[in-house]
Amino acid sequence: MAPRFTVIGSYVSPYVRKVLACLELKGQAYEIDPIPPFVGDERFTALSPLRRVPVLIDGDLVLTDSSVICQYLEDRFATPSLYPADIAARAKARWLEEYCDTHLASLLLWKLFYQKVIRRHFFGEEPDEALMAHAREVEIPAALDYLESQLPAEGYAFGELSIADISLASYFRTAAFVRYAIDATRWPRTAALVHKVQALPPFQRLAQLEDAILRVPPQDQRAVLATAGVPLTATTMGTQAPRKGSARVE
Amino acid sequence: MAPRFTVIGSYVSPYVRKVLACLELKGQAYEIDPIPPFVGDERFTALSPLRRVPVLIDGDLVLTDSSVICQYLEDRFATPSLYPADIAARAKARWLEEYCDTHLASLLLWKLFYQKVIRRHFFGEEPDEALMAHAREVEIPAALDYLESQLPAEGYAFGELSIADISLASYFRTAAFVRYAIDATRWPRTAALVHKVQALPPFQRLAQLEDAILRVPPQDQRAVLATAGVPLTATTMGTQAPRKGSARVE
Repeated sequence: MAPRFTVIGSYVSPYVRKVLACLELKGQAYEIDPIPPFVGDERFTALSPLRRVPVLIDGDLVLTDSSVICQYLEDRFATPSLYPADIAARAKARWLEEYCDTHLASLLLWKLFYQKVIRRHFFGEEPDEALMAHAREVEIPAALDYLESQLPAEGYAFGELSIADISLASYFRTAAFVRYAIDATRWPRTAALVHKVQALPPFQRLAQLEDAILRVPPQDQRAVLATAGVPLTATTMGTQAPRKGSARVE
Repeated sequence: MAPRFTVIGSYVSPYVRKVLACLELKGQAYEIDPIPPFVGDERFTALSPLRRVPVLIDGDLVLTDSSVICQYLEDRFATPSLYPADIAARAKARWLEEYCDTHLASLLLWKLFYQKVIRRHFFGEEPDEALMAHAREVEIPAALDYLESQLPAEGYAFGELSIADISLASYFRTAAFVRYAIDATRWPRTAALVHKVQALPPFQRLAQLEDAILRVPPQDQRAVLATAGVPLTATTMGTQAPRKGSARVE
């Protein structure tokens, strides 16, 4: 029997990683159409009007936007809870998630990963070195200063593992693809938290798949994942040549 | 006694309007520091690291991001509920909210209101007519086609009034400031829904204040609001000259 859930989107996306981590932490099986960024065809556009990944399909329900999907999974499967029980802490966790989804995404995803990987390998363009340098030297340090001010000296952001921790770990994992690592002497709390979450079994399993697909061109990624035993959808919506025009890789 | 809640942000912002509507619908009193866009000083930056409005202050808790704040108010005050009880409908309502906060905002707020009002009156720049025309003629119609496909023939989006309806009405209200109205012959469902929500007493009360401040320059807006009986904060964080650099007017 096919798993209940279908996910559309690549393992390289931090937005996809958030959703896959939530599914794995909640013990929910899924199959995946791991379309690389920017290659979704017209069937994909019909499911995701802003052409964002991930898409989650649950029977007749089609959802897009990682925050909406993660909250949906929480509403459906209360255990283990990935949102703080305390109402104020829950709001702060959602804010840190939003901070990751917009601000960290604008820096780590669009100013580092997109420039170095997507622009070069998908669109044959040179990265914007000045943009990347300003992000690395000014903007990302400022964001890390803020995060450091919000995190506890040790442990997860709000006691138990929550969507805030999952989001932070997901974005810095995509940053690691372009060799960005948090300086633990300067931002020890953020570095320790990200390390702790990325060491969890679901993140470790995903990391193996991420490493595997990053070594091969997009058209070979499905075969690599099939060999690794990943449950793939029967067909793929990633049939177009890469084209720009998505609002973001989400 | 001062009200429990403090809100920072202008009545012209759709993000602020969402939060004020939720507070009013839930019967919660608030005072407001109605700073115009782009004038928040260093105290504002300390509260809102991405310089977004609205900010909600509830005792020691300081929250930013309208979606996080509205969900917080729902978690604190369950009645009247502004999120669908059905889990799938709740996820779809959150998606429509997200669609408004990002995509409708990019069109109605940034390509219409910002161009015609903020650029001209705050920064002394001419609006980008080509950008505005493309939004009016191509992008906004496409967004309305999508919305029309998601809404029921009559009534609210998901039965009872929800965050989806509040969001839609908030964005099209800001669009009305620059004389954009939905063509009800082409998009009857969306037009009727927006009209229905904007006719609710909280939206009507807010509309009176919005109209009042839009008639006067920013430095006179506090006095106008005080005359209208609005509970204002004792001091304002809107002391800087307008400066660009906010990610969005949120």
